[in-house]
Amino acid sequence: MVMLTAMHRRAALGLLSMLASGSYGCDSVQKASTTCALPASGLAQGSTVVDLSHAFDEQTIYWPTEAGFVLEKEADGVTAGGYYYASNKFSAPEHGGTHIDAPRHFAQNHSTVDQIPLDRLIGPAVVVDVTEACARDRDHNVNVADFEAWERTHGTIPNGTIVLIFTGFGRYWPDREKYMGTAERGAEAVKKLHFPGLDPDAAVWLVEKRAIHAVGLDTPSIDHGPSTTFDSHRRLFEREVPAFENIANLDQLPATGTTVVALPMKIKGGSGGPLRAVAIVPKAH
Amino acid sequence: MVMLTAMHRRAALGLLSMLASGSYGCDSVQKASTTCALPASGLAQGSTVVDLSHAFDEQTIYWPTEAGFVLEKEADGVTAGGYYYASNKFSAPEHGGTHIDAPRHFAQNHSTVDQIPLDRLIGPAVVVDVTEACARDRDHNVNVADFEAWERTHGTIPNGTIVLIFTGFGRYWPDREKYMGTAERGAEAVKKLHFPGLDPDAAVWLVEKRAIHAVGLDTPSIDHGPSTTFDSHRRLFEREVPAFENIANLDQLPATGTTVVALPMKIKGGSGGPLRAVAIVPKAH
Repeated sequence: MVMLTAMHRRAALGLLSMLASGSYGCDSVQKASTTCALPASGLAQGSTVVDLSHAFDEQTIYWPTEAGFVLEKEADGVTAGGYYYASNKFSAPEHGGTHIDAPRHFAQNHSTVDQIPLDRLIGPAVVVDVTEACARDRDHNVNVADFEAWERTHGTIPNGTIVLIFTGFGRYWPDREKYMGTAERGAEAVKKLHFPGLDPDAAVWLVEKRAIHAVGLDTPSIDHGPSTTFDSHRRLFEREVPAFENIANLDQLPATGTTVVALPMKIKGGSGGPLRAVAIVPKAH
Repeated sequence: MVMLTAMHRRAALGLLSMLASGSYGCDSVQKASTTCALPASGLAQGSTVVDLSHAFDEQTIYWPTEAGFVLEKEADGVTAGGYYYASNKFSAPEHGGTHIDAPRHFAQNHSTVDQIPLDRLIGPAVVVDVTEACARDRDHNVNVADFEAWERTHGTIPNGTIVLIFTGFGRYWPDREKYMGTAERGAEAVKKLHFPGLDPDAAVWLVEKRAIHAVGLDTPSIDHGPSTTFDSHRRLFEREVPAFENIANLDQLPATGTTVVALPMKIKGGSGGPLRAVAIVPKAH
């Protein structure tokens, strides 16, 4: 309980600092902003906001059986009225790019994406670095021993935590072959998927022994590439715990002390959808 | 500057309380959760998270010239593998439902939605109640006098604030005729649009005199319904200030003290897109 309070307090103080500072660091146009420095002033130590979402474009990675994201231009130029105007429309499967799996994705009658309680999506996060094991074995199933090893260094994962699994595979984005094991498309390509995931027993352990609020990782799926039965999805979702997939920039986060805000597109009845997630990192880290 | 510090500190303390509490109030499935009570414990006073986004469905309101949101079922049932599986795909224009207008929407070479700095989207908010004026005149242009009247009660709007304009029209959602003045579709229907908006001179005043980070409201457009020249859009976006449109649940927010986190779908090169926004409200309010 001491650990819980300390971690939550640390996360909150970072956000406090940011908000208290009043003026921020990146008002100007940024062409490629993945992070946004928030300078110290007043009460503040200063904090950083890290963008955990990849952009959606024609390179965005979807399952080999899915089409992908399509942006279609409606207008881009000076109108008859004499002013500039741009607009587009788009289409996409729910599950691809940085997105959330709602419990409904693999658990009938469980929450759709619009029904996920907001407190599962906003809160303190831990980042579990399993990059070495995943570099040795690209099908690594992150297991209870991995989490226990992390806890020996960082303390018990507090109840209500958002657990982010850092496999290191995010560095391959958007190279399909390196990221997911194949650049081929269609049903046959599914057999060639190779990337790390969460072991199904560890999924149950995180929910039942650590009462986590959500779990995310930097691969296309919470079950590892070779899975054909998707047991981690099923066990998490029967227990109402959503999963964030294709999370970006986990290399920029400390193991503890961050606050995550992960807000999905609110698709009524959706089994998932595009997710914009950020982490607020206190300067102390 | 005293006001700034006090307001930012108040907003931050609410979030601090929430995060510090460690356990939250709505882990179970909720069928219609617009708010999520966060009970007090430990350091906490307790806070509430208010969902500021409408869900996307077949009733979601778009401009009369736009088609709308379409969800298409891909799977919903027990697979050959013996487990339940559901997934969908969807299509939509960028501008409709609860969404953000990026500066690029009306300002060439200005930020696309993926380029908006995160610190414009996360921070302390004020809610300016203009429901009476908008009830008297459904084309009301919220003007500098309206903001000055608000400031006489609540103090000067601090630099870096997200300004939310509460017209009261959100209560009509998703009734198109009541909400926007017409349920007709097509180019001719645009002439029949009637709803409140932000006066173009007030838009400049908010940016140049109050250095706001973003502005949002509970109508379909930051320019009022009868506008044909979209001057508020143009003046805001030339100054890199984004606009949130069709914001929900503004009736649930206090005038000051909340922290808004507004995270748009990260569409590369997009002129805008679906927005999931929340407000964190300290219990003290």
